[in-house]
Amino acid sequence: MRADGREKNDDLRSTVIEPDYVKHPEGSVLISVGDTKVICSASVEERVPSFMRGQGKGWITAEYAMLPRATEQRNIRESSKGKVSGRTMEIQRLIGRALRSVIDLESFGERTLWVDCDVIQADGGTRTAAITGAFVASTMAFSKLEREGKLSTFPVTDYLAAVSVGIDEKGETFLDLCFEEDSAAAVDVNVVMTRSGQFVEIQGTGEEATFSRQQLDEMLRLAEEGIRKLIAIQKTVLESTISALPRSEEEVNET
Amino acid sequence: MRADGREKNDDLRSTVIEPDYVKHPEGSVLISVGDTKVICSASVEERVPSFMRGQGKGWITAEYAMLPRATEQRNIRESSKGKVSGRTMEIQRLIGRALRSVIDLESFGERTLWVDCDVIQADGGTRTAAITGAFVASTMAFSKLEREGKLSTFPVTDYLAAVSVGIDEKGETFLDLCFEEDSAAAVDVNVVMTRSGQFVEIQGTGEEATFSRQQLDEMLRLAEEGIRKLIAIQKTVLESTISALPRSEEEVNET
Amino acid sequence: MRADGREKNDDLRSTVIEPDYVKHPEGSVLISVGDTKVICSASVEERVPSFMRGQGKGWITAEYAMLPRATEQRNIRESSKGKVSGRTMEIQRLIGRALRSVIDLESFGERTLWVDCDVIQADGGTRTAAITGAFVASTMAFSKLEREGKLSTFPVTDYLAAVSVGIDEKGETFLDLCFEEDSAAAVDVNVVMTRSGQFVEIQGTGEEATFSRQQLDEMLRLAEEGIRKLIAIQKTVLESTISALPRSEEEVNET
Amino acid sequence: MRADGREKNDDLRSTVIEPDYVKHPEGSVLISVGDTKVICSASVEERVPSFMRGQGKGWITAEYAMLPRATEQRNIRESSKGKVSGRTMEIQRLIGRALRSVIDLESFGERTLWVDCDVIQADGGTRTAAITGAFVASTMAFSKLEREGKLSTFPVTDYLAAVSVGIDEKGETFLDLCFEEDSAAAVDVNVVMTRSGQFVEIQGTGEEATFSRQQLDEMLRLAEEGIRKLIAIQKTVLESTISALPRSEEEVNET
Amino acid sequence: MRADGREKNDDLRSTVIEPDYVKHPEGSVLISVGDTKVICSASVEERVPSFMRGQGKGWITAEYAMLPRATEQRNIRESSKGKVSGRTMEIQRLIGRALRSVIDLESFGERTLWVDCDVIQADGGTRTAAITGAFVASTMAFSKLEREGKLSTFPVTDYLAAVSVGIDEKGETFLDLCFEEDSAAAVDVNVVMTRSGQFVEIQGTGEEATFSRQQLDEMLRLAEEGIRKLIAIQKTVLESTISALPRSEEEVNET
Amino acid sequence: MRADGREKNDDLRSTVIEPDYVKHPEGSVLISVGDTKVICSASVEERVPSFMRGQGKGWITAEYAMLPRATEQRNIRESSKGKVSGRTMEIQRLIGRALRSVIDLESFGERTLWVDCDVIQADGGTRTAAITGAFVASTMAFSKLEREGKLSTFPVTDYLAAVSVGIDEKGETFLDLCFEEDSAAAVDVNVVMTRSGQFVEIQGTGEEATFSRQQLDEMLRLAEEGIRKLIAIQKTVLESTISALPRSEEEVNET
Repeated sequence: MRADGREKNDDLRSTVIEPDYVKHPEGSVLISVGDTKVICSASVEERVPSFMRGQGKGWITAEYAMLPRATEQRNIRESSKGKVSGRTMEIQRLIGRALRSVIDLESFGERTLWVDCDVIQADGGTRTAAITGAFVASTMAFSKLEREGKLSTFPVTDYLAAVSVGIDEKGETFLDLCFEEDSAAAVDVNVVMTRSGQFVEIQGTGEEATFSRQQLDEMLRLAEEGIRKLIAIQKTVLESTISALPRSEEEVNET
Repeated sequence: MRADGREKNDDLRSTVIEPDYVKHPEGSVLISVGDTKVICSASVEERVPSFMRGQGKGWITAEYAMLPRATEQRNIRESSKGKVSGRTMEIQRLIGRALRSVIDLESFGERTLWVDCDVIQADGGTRTAAITGAFVASTMAFSKLEREGKLSTFPVTDYLAAVSVGIDEKGETFLDLCFEEDSAAAVDVNVVMTRSGQFVEIQGTGEEATFSRQQLDEMLRLAEEGIRKLIAIQKTVLESTISALPRSEEEVNET
Repeated sequence: MRADGREKNDDLRSTVIEPDYVKHPEGSVLISVGDTKVICSASVEERVPSFMRGQGKGWITAEYAMLPRATEQRNIRESSKGKVSGRTMEIQRLIGRALRSVIDLESFGERTLWVDCDVIQADGGTRTAAITGAFVASTMAFSKLEREGKLSTFPVTDYLAAVSVGIDEKGETFLDLCFEEDSAAAVDVNVVMTRSGQFVEIQGTGEEATFSRQQLDEMLRLAEEGIRKLIAIQKTVLESTISALPRSEEEVNET
Repeated sequence: MRADGREKNDDLRSTVIEPDYVKHPEGSVLISVGDTKVICSASVEERVPSFMRGQGKGWITAEYAMLPRATEQRNIRESSKGKVSGRTMEIQRLIGRALRSVIDLESFGERTLWVDCDVIQADGGTRTAAITGAFVASTMAFSKLEREGKLSTFPVTDYLAAVSVGIDEKGETFLDLCFEEDSAAAVDVNVVMTRSGQFVEIQGTGEEATFSRQQLDEMLRLAEEGIRKLIAIQKTVLESTISALPRSEEEVNET
Repeated sequence: MRADGREKNDDLRSTVIEPDYVKHPEGSVLISVGDTKVICSASVEERVPSFMRGQGKGWITAEYAMLPRATEQRNIRESSKGKVSGRTMEIQRLIGRALRSVIDLESFGERTLWVDCDVIQADGGTRTAAITGAFVASTMAFSKLEREGKLSTFPVTDYLAAVSVGIDEKGETFLDLCFEEDSAAAVDVNVVMTRSGQFVEIQGTGEEATFSRQQLDEMLRLAEEGIRKLIAIQKTVLESTISALPRSEEEVNET
Repeated sequence: MRADGREKNDDLRSTVIEPDYVKHPEGSVLISVGDTKVICSASVEERVPSFMRGQGKGWITAEYAMLPRATEQRNIRESSKGKVSGRTMEIQRLIGRALRSVIDLESFGERTLWVDCDVIQADGGTRTAAITGAFVASTMAFSKLEREGKLSTFPVTDYLAAVSVGIDEKGETFLDLCFEEDSAAAVDVNVVMTRSGQFVEIQGTGEEATFSRQQLDEMLRLAEEGIRKLIAIQKTVLESTISALPRSEEEVNET
């Protein structure tokens, strides 16, 4: 049995996406993946940063933070420290890149989509939960823009979700590591994929360890399976909430 | 009728305090005052800052922040700006002072109580809601310490809550201003009181306006009434959650 | 007898306001309240901050600082620390708000009044001395603008001064606390009032203590008395220095 | 033909590692990969950061920077900006992790190995060149410690090198992208491997693009080939310079 | 006639040194050189910075700042900017070095002398006025230590003063430049000397100009003359204020 | 014999200036003065800072840094510390002023010349080596502009080089101090001169020491001699590299 009671190596934790969790943002969700809880909100600003002006296209930028006591030990606030840590920067760059791979910047005008992922409770996998939730919040925000008649094409071109996979000290592979598993893992891989089965990002890291090609293949298989399930959950939430929906290329072709 | 639908000038907004909202902190609540929602968490650290060491007493420090999109317009994160604003500093100093007035620093040893107030949705009165919620979270944290046998005396000596009162442009006084009322107010007074009816803090400000002694008296009357109701709510929550309870001086004397 | 030799609880310290203390600013004074000495200078800049542009009105902003050795113990410079403390921010926000309550922003065009309060020697009550002095320096600056024909209406609408009151450990109330009294005080209230007897700001704080309604009333009575005396001193200085003078509403009505 | 004149997709650029490039560090090289030039220096400090003290083991930390005019356009110095960019942080974290995977922290005592990678000329692939060079500089530094009799076991357990692979807009895969190729690439993957063929890190990113499983496989094949050649170059340099050499697991087993 | 009404090129401005200008520091003066006014205070701290500990000797460190409106145009506070300018750093390093050349660090124990030079009004030559004033304040502080029996030898070994000299656009040399002269000068030289006629520091700068050896000689002659007069003023102030006095080497030898 | 093996007090260290050391900048050199090595690069930006706009003239700004391990002990990066040290600021201000004294800002249009001096190995005299090298790199950059037909007059009006001189503890004077000599020196003077024998800058400092007029004269004589040799080296490099050359005033007059 796994550290948090799951039975199988390829079990995903219970994942719930609660839409409209806060009232002001154009789109927002609370995503819970096991005990990991992240508020994702998507805000539309009616202008782009100066380096993008005059190109007739939009921009997406993501920010990530944790409440100080989201974790077992309280962390010092980054605002008090006066600077954002390397880990935070890495994560917010990752979330931004991931969203940009399935959102067409050309199709929502000179607007910025600000995506804020605030972890209120952490139990491993906060960055992948943030991506999975941020995708839903962003799609909701674009759906609002579309209902207001501000878009000619729906900018979201495919579903997108993320999950972690890892290898423990005995060399076994696992899907969706909780904090206890993550702390003990020899190798940790974060995978971001679309519904059409394309990779968007692979970040595999052996901290004081290495991994073979065969282990990589097994981890990617687990990740693909997990992401398929996560996208099914996203789809259910979005279908009951909004009208415009991202469609994978195949679906578009079928039409 | 008031901006958010309340009927009377002395109506308090619907206030709910949900205990144990996040799992890691020693004490935590989600306080909702109308549409204002604040996660208050109280963390116990087993040491004091260096300037307090060796005195055998504890310390309390509070931090306050807003999620970027807690408000109608998205705010830039203070961690991104690299510094904490004057408004934030003012509020966290206020919360800390208020708590220290009813918590005996001598009675919980060389420990620091970190109180984090994170506004996830804002609709006016976030600093007073933060104080009211932080009091409950802190009391829960001390109750946990007591259950663990780490305290000889219960450090919380009285109930404590806070509310805002104000004067609108026509000179009328109001209790518990929502954001729309607050924006239009000529005078804004934040009051922090104990259950025994003592003042802990009065911060009255006329931004580009002034107020008479008579208006001050009327505002203080409204505030006292509001705080009595808030403390009743705190009491209900705490009585059902914890064993050790703060008692006002009178109660102590009655015993 | 009081700590600094005053005889009565309602004795104000000897207060001197020396006009034109430094030569460059449009208005400047050295205010001495007992051993507390503050250089207040008011500078007129011919533009407003960007968020105010195009509204045809002015802005007032205040800054407060202490020389490192204004105090018994040398303080580290805030420029060396690279950031302004919470205390400093609180004080400069207070001074700015106070001045804005008696200066009509609409009547001096798109200009910024920078008010700098630099404490060169501290003995308690620096923030209230700063307000009392800053009012005189600001009025002098506007008087200069008026003499230069740059104003249609005189923007200063009433006199303004500030004083501290407090309660000592035995529960006695005092006017205008010197540093030694302030350090020992259980409760500290700063009051800002106009000549017409209106409150502009009340900041009452019990650090690890509380106060009753009756004590508040007694402190406000002392404050009102002290402020009346301070405004008399301001009036004498301004009448001998400048032509345009603020007049309280009553005076305006009498005319 | 490729942008910089190479003929084949799997051609590595001409790579030269010049040992002892600067005189003060315990180990240093200038690595040139085509027109990309990085000074890598490894400094031994006789203590560890405070969070590592008392554990009897060492620490490795890496820093990365570019001279302002290493690039076509001059960049503002990070020291002038007062903060390190997200990109820089990501790279220095990557270099540190990579080195730690083949250097046994337990075997060099409470010392810190500081690895500085300063790009003096950039033409794509600076982070992978930095890792390949940093490995040599670090090994030289440990060899110096060993000659001084300060080590019981040689801490470097395997060779380590890194290379980039990518996919262009037509879907073709390439090894070791120069700046022009990198700017045009749809997908960019950085791979860090050991001589024993184990992965240490895979960072694959589709900026506004995605990639299939088959494309990933092809890129990993190219990377493996490139890294084998880079390790051959490292080996030649180290064999002629130092006595103690890292040996892959197989070699150890053969003995 | 010169810009500020002086008649001759070698006229020093009227210089007044007012001792004990502020009450808290161990030594303090207000030095006025024409319209340039600087508060110099010397504070004794009973410890040295960590890099000096355990050597049995003292340290001297100087800080320099201007009030925002010391100048014709208001300057932004360095505390608000969050960093100290290059000009400020250069000046405070200069003041510290100058004082250390005539104060024996070995003879006042493990103490730090903090010298704060705060310009309250600027009209050229603020850095040289600061040095001349700081010398007096520092000597007063050491005299206080001596009266308290804390010193075995008096640490001040010689008098020290500073003055500026310059060349205008026509090639004429001038002593003690006021702001208007300084702004127009082609060459600006700051000279720090002792009473025994030794140089401590020469900083000669041609901003977009150069100067010949002959011009340098003429400027150094003027500077020497000016410094002799300044030291006479320092001597008068110190003789009437303190008991222990610095003596030049010759005087020591005469004894 | 001197610390680094030189025989005479007026021996200059072996000095080599290698042009075009890095490929991107408009002008670049690696200057080696003994073991001191500095990469100097000159970058032309097609605009001036905002405070210079619209005046039809150019600007020159210099930056100086050391690689962390350019020195015997590793230094913390200024980018990691988040601020530039006083020493660095002093040096970059000095380099900029020196260059501006022989480069006519009026003659290269609204452009900025960025001069970057990065010390890759330090053995004393880094700031003077930086000036001597920066002059060559800047002249190369302007020569490139001229070849591109962007200049009507060649902006460099004279040669410029810098050297250090000093006095050791026995009172002997030395030219071009290496690190070991510099550490032991009682007095250190940096001199910047033109080929026509004019002074541009003299910075003479006695750290905890003083120097006589006679010693100053001897040091200036040594410096003049050293600078003549350095300019001869610059001339050889530039004559073989570029077409347009700075000419001293005499040469211009001879024509």
